[in-house]
Formats: sequence, structure tokens, C-alpha cells
Amino acid sequence: MSPSSPPPPLADTPEPPYYAVIFASTMTGDDPEGYAAMAQAMVDLAARQPGYLGLESARGPDGLGITVSYWTDPAAITAWKAQAEHQVAQRLGRDRWYGAFRLRVARVERAYGFDR
Amino acid sequence: MSPSSPPPPLADTPEPPYYAVIFASTMTGDDPEGYAAMAQAMVDLAARQPGYLGLESARGPDGLGITVSYWTDPAAITAWKAQAEHQVAQRLGRDRWYGAFRLRVARVERAYGFDR
Repeated sequence: MSPSSPPPPLADTPEPPYYAVIFASTMTGDDPEGYAAMAQAMVDLAARQPGYLGLESARGPDGLGITVSYWTDPAAITAWKAQAEHQVAQRLGRDRWYGAFRLRVARVERAYGFDR
Repeated sequence: MSPSSPPPPLADTPEPPYYAVIFASTMTGDDPEGYAAMAQAMVDLAARQPGYLGLESARGPDGLGITVSYWTDPAAITAWKAQAEHQVAQRLGRDRWYGAFRLRVARVERAYGFDR
């Protein structure tokens, strides 16, 4: 995958256990271009990190967004977070873009799926 | 919360540990009204179940949707799943509505948030 390719819509993750970072947010609506650039940069950054397994992301018309990224283990998440915070800090952003957010780190224990 | 109230946009969950059901899906576009009714019924059903802690849901313009529901423990998820499958089966739906889906059950280990 090239750094700027969009991720596939659903992640094809391996058998559990693995880890998920569940990030849910609402937006202020301030600086949408700056936010969009940062969001794409974060997706590209994740895809280049060791331990990355995939990502799913949706934002509805009400402005609520959910991005779930999948990782082999907590150490991979810690390394990605350090990189991401460094980049976000350079972009001056979080307090400006987000109305509110929740970030949860979870261990995936069971999974199944369906493809047409 | 009344059965038909929309959930608040972000879930105010207790301190971890607790559990998350991460459901990501794409749609066929077939029978949108039937799907919308089922989706609202599932949200209402979840909110009435023992062990329910909250829910976050978004569907983007590309049709990818993510719904994350939060639960006290795996037994609460099992009980909800049995109820939900019974209701969905009555509505003739899954194979018709979903292009693909991924369902993951995960134990939330860490969480933090921000509110403006």
C-alpha cells in the first residue's frame, strides 16, 4: 500500500488476540482543511508502523466519527502514539478540532465476519 | 432514556475494565427502510439490556458504518446477542442488508477522553 492510498473499508485482521484503539470524536467544525490533512497523515502514519494490522473509519453527517485501528500488541500502540502525538503537536491541532473525544485501548478476544 | 431516544454522541463509560463490541459493516443499499428500522431497534434493545454501558455509532457517505457498544462483562454481551439475533431473524435481514461486516469483542483496558 502506498502511503497515501486509502485503507480498504473493512480490516482483514488475523485470529485474535490482538489489540484495538477505538477513537470516537465530535468536531468543532473549525479548520476543516487542517483537520482533514492531519487525519489523513495519521492514517498514513499508522499504516507504516510496526505491528499495524488495519483500520476502519467512519464519520456521519452529525459529525460523530469513529476510527478503530488494529495492532499486534500494546507496545506497537505505544510506539504509534508517540509518533502520532509528535506529529499532531507540530500541527497545533487537537484542542482546536475536537469538540470531545474518547480513546479506548482494548484487547480483541473474539471476532467473526461476513463477506458477500 | 426512553426506548426511542437517540443515544448521546459519545459514551460516558466507567473506569476500565469493561467490554466493547465493535461492529463495522458495509451496506448493499437494498431495503434501506427495513435496515434503518432494524438498526434503531437494535440500539433500543441494547439500551434496555442488563450490563449496557453505552454506544457510539457513525456511518460515512461511503456507506461504511461502525457501531461500538460497551458492556460490563462478556455475559451481558452473550445475553444481548441472543436477543438481537432473535429479533434480526424475525426481520429477515442480515444477508440482504450487509455487503460485509466484521464483529469483534474486546476487553477495554485503558481509556481517556476530552470534553470541551
